[in-house]
Amino acid sequence: MRRMFACLALLASTLALAGGPEDAVKTAQALRDRALAGSTAYAITESLTTEVGPRLAGTGADARAVAWAQAKFRELGFDKVYLEPVTFPVWRRGHETAQVLAPYPQPLVVTALGDSIGTGDAPVEAEVVQFPDLAALEAVDDDRVRGKIAFIANRMDRTKDGSDYGKAVPARSRGAVAAAKKGAVAVLIRSIGTGSDRFAHTGMMRYEDGTPKVPAAALSNPDADLLTQMLRRGEPVRLRLALDVGPDGEYTSHNVIGEITGRELADEVVLIGGHLDSWDLGTGAVDDAAGIAITMAAAALIGELDTPPRRTVRVVAFANEEQGIYGANQYAQAHAGEVDRHVLGAESDFGADRIYALRSKGIGADLAAAMARVLEPLGIAHETGDGDPGADIGPMTKLGMPYVNLAQDGTRYFDLHHTANDTLDKVDAKALDQQVAAYAAMAYLAAQCGRTGCNGPP
Amino acid sequence: MRRMFACLALLASTLALAGGPEDAVKTAQALRDRALAGSTAYAITESLTTEVGPRLAGTGADARAVAWAQAKFRELGFDKVYLEPVTFPVWRRGHETAQVLAPYPQPLVVTALGDSIGTGDAPVEAEVVQFPDLAALEAVDDDRVRGKIAFIANRMDRTKDGSDYGKAVPARSRGAVAAAKKGAVAVLIRSIGTGSDRFAHTGMMRYEDGTPKVPAAALSNPDADLLTQMLRRGEPVRLRLALDVGPDGEYTSHNVIGEITGRELADEVVLIGGHLDSWDLGTGAVDDAAGIAITMAAAALIGELDTPPRRTVRVVAFANEEQGIYGANQYAQAHAGEVDRHVLGAESDFGADRIYALRSKGIGADLAAAMARVLEPLGIAHETGDGDPGADIGPMTKLGMPYVNLAQDGTRYFDLHHTANDTLDKVDAKALDQQVAAYAAMAYLAAQCGRTGCNGPP
Repeated sequence: MRRMFACLALLASTLALAGGPEDAVKTAQALRDRALAGSTAYAITESLTTEVGPRLAGTGADARAVAWAQAKFRELGFDKVYLEPVTFPVWRRGHETAQVLAPYPQPLVVTALGDSIGTGDAPVEAEVVQFPDLAALEAVDDDRVRGKIAFIANRMDRTKDGSDYGKAVPARSRGAVAAAKKGAVAVLIRSIGTGSDRFAHTGMMRYEDGTPKVPAAALSNPDADLLTQMLRRGEPVRLRLALDVGPDGEYTSHNVIGEITGRELADEVVLIGGHLDSWDLGTGAVDDAAGIAITMAAAALIGELDTPPRRTVRVVAFANEEQGIYGANQYAQAHAGEVDRHVLGAESDFGADRIYALRSKGIGADLAAAMARVLEPLGIAHETGDGDPGADIGPMTKLGMPYVNLAQDGTRYFDLHHTANDTLDKVDAKALDQQVAAYAAMAYLAAQCGRTGCNGPP
Repeated sequence: MRRMFACLALLASTLALAGGPEDAVKTAQALRDRALAGSTAYAITESLTTEVGPRLAGTGADARAVAWAQAKFRELGFDKVYLEPVTFPVWRRGHETAQVLAPYPQPLVVTALGDSIGTGDAPVEAEVVQFPDLAALEAVDDDRVRGKIAFIANRMDRTKDGSDYGKAVPARSRGAVAAAKKGAVAVLIRSIGTGSDRFAHTGMMRYEDGTPKVPAAALSNPDADLLTQMLRRGEPVRLRLALDVGPDGEYTSHNVIGEITGRELADEVVLIGGHLDSWDLGTGAVDDAAGIAITMAAAALIGELDTPPRRTVRVVAFANEEQGIYGANQYAQAHAGEVDRHVLGAESDFGADRIYALRSKGIGADLAAAMARVLEPLGIAHETGDGDPGADIGPMTKLGMPYVNLAQDGTRYFDLHHTANDTLDKVDAKALDQQVAAYAAMAYLAAQCGRTGCNGPP
């Protein structure tokens, strides 16, 4: 298979050297078909989740992940591998427990939200008051909340595009501030997630200057149901919440960068990647070992061509996306002067399931059409909307970098997202191959043809 | 609906008074249809899991569960509610953690097996050696295991009848003895469960006299995969295992018994029930709040008839099934002289999903045929095999009590069994109603007609 592919690729890249758009499309098709025959993405995902596992930014596992990524880029044949430093505050998680004290004593499954303060030397013990959503908490009289634990019970719905996440997540990000303004002693939320498995979903929350900080945590969805059932009975429900978490200094990690150097315009780059860090509860398989693996494997396939594309394919394994997009912001700051030399950016960070749509912003119609043509047999529809560049590509797109959005099916994603259940067994190798096929073909076309496409100016 | 049912039931029971087999069948059919229209089983399940939650035998929750069951029987109109004491050793669970120390440091999700000793003042730290199954561990040279943690990686397959449980479970029950005989310092098993969610499955293990006791725990299935992946790389894998668990004295709980007294032969009983205790990790919704709820609701429906059946329907909420069938053994001991006065026994303890088969042993063909006729519209096939009486009915059947086995679809059961994920959201109210319909009809026919059936001697 490998020898046949080498012949096909040789043929295709020889044709591509001739420079016509059909030649580039043929090479992209060959890359696509090679990826579908079995890519290395699953093995990369297995490697990161097994050999590093959970890799919360700023922990020892962060450093091990950086070393892993450097070694993996080299092993995959990237010809340039380097680091760019990224500094950020560290947040640590120790023990975390919650219990109903009365009237129905039993433990609850809980996890602290990222950036939350801990409960200190003594756990918080207080009555719970429930709100259907953040707006209801914000609208209530202070008297209803003062001295209590505010519980925001809003549910997230399951959708293919994950569009309900944006509607549900303010309870997580802003719940502590809203609760503290009413005099609450802590905030608890129903997990921002779609599954009914008994996993609490972590994720970032934020404090604001001038408002007291109160501990913030998420209940698993079955536990949120349970608490609602207790409260419905009418008697006061008292909880104990103990969170041994909090800020823990500062750390310098790294964006890890691997390149397949372009043969003519090496300083023009096609930027793809995912984030190397993960939350600590699972092994970060779908979030985002899969994205790292898909983009690494796609560029590695391009690197196996006898004739590289004209421009460079750059894969960035971004540092600390989860706690504030630190790696991507650093990248945008360091490369702000090179936006024009970025053909486009595309990130993979929405789980491990198949791509169903191609969307783009800022690239030529010719280039988009060529991508659409090569990706269509993968079950990927060309949609006219801009789509979303994603968290790690976002900062560069704000500076004007064009982007491609290869939209993944996110139906299952928020069952697993930010939970202990984000593990390798949730990843399907064939679904990864389909994505590697799409990224390899897309990145090759962009690197070979440039922003406007092979029909445009060279 | 309720009034219409009352009329139907009145009609049916009036006919039944006439005494023919058709009359008994008609009342059983009316009970069945009443249950299908909406039973109280879901509400009972919700009540037990919310108001008591996890109820490990011998804990404070055990006593709360006993009080709950007494109150619930009374609320449901049982005319006789009483307790029978059951004494057993207590096992307690505190913290439990496992971590890979080298070469790929990361935490593992683990739970101690019931009856395991703890790891004492210092955690166990040792190299892991993997075996595909218990037989492989038993066959190996001591040198391979001495001073190490033995890891038994056998998998349980998913089947409708749960038949693979019996094949897989010896690794759990006998793994510690096998490991200790080879000089291991602890035993770890892959969870005896079918799901790939990251929940460890607990359950009982046993020591034997004359063999040292070593700590025993189960990894979640994703963690078992992870450990296997690490070991496959060839370097020694070292783990730290810390289990704060162990024996904790003795406790006297109770079988809680509710009766719908028969109108003619009150000391002849149809025995149905489930177990009131649960493991501590979940809220014991499918194991076995559902079984308690199904049998309570079925008997309560019979209790609503204007004319009760000739014999008594007795529901037993058995104490401490999980840690050694203590309640059922006590029941069999206390009632050994009354086996002939037990028409039959039937227990519900295989999850919350629908019944698909009727099997029986020791009852007359007429009675079985009448049951089959009434249950057939519920999608329940009459099978000729004996089936399994179940753990809590078992001791009485060993003394000669006939039994009925209403076999539930166990396809999902071992995903949830003995895990934190055994919670109310896994229970479908309509599936419970179908089971209440089957139990109510079956128990009524047995109580009205006796062992041989309404065509036989009275």
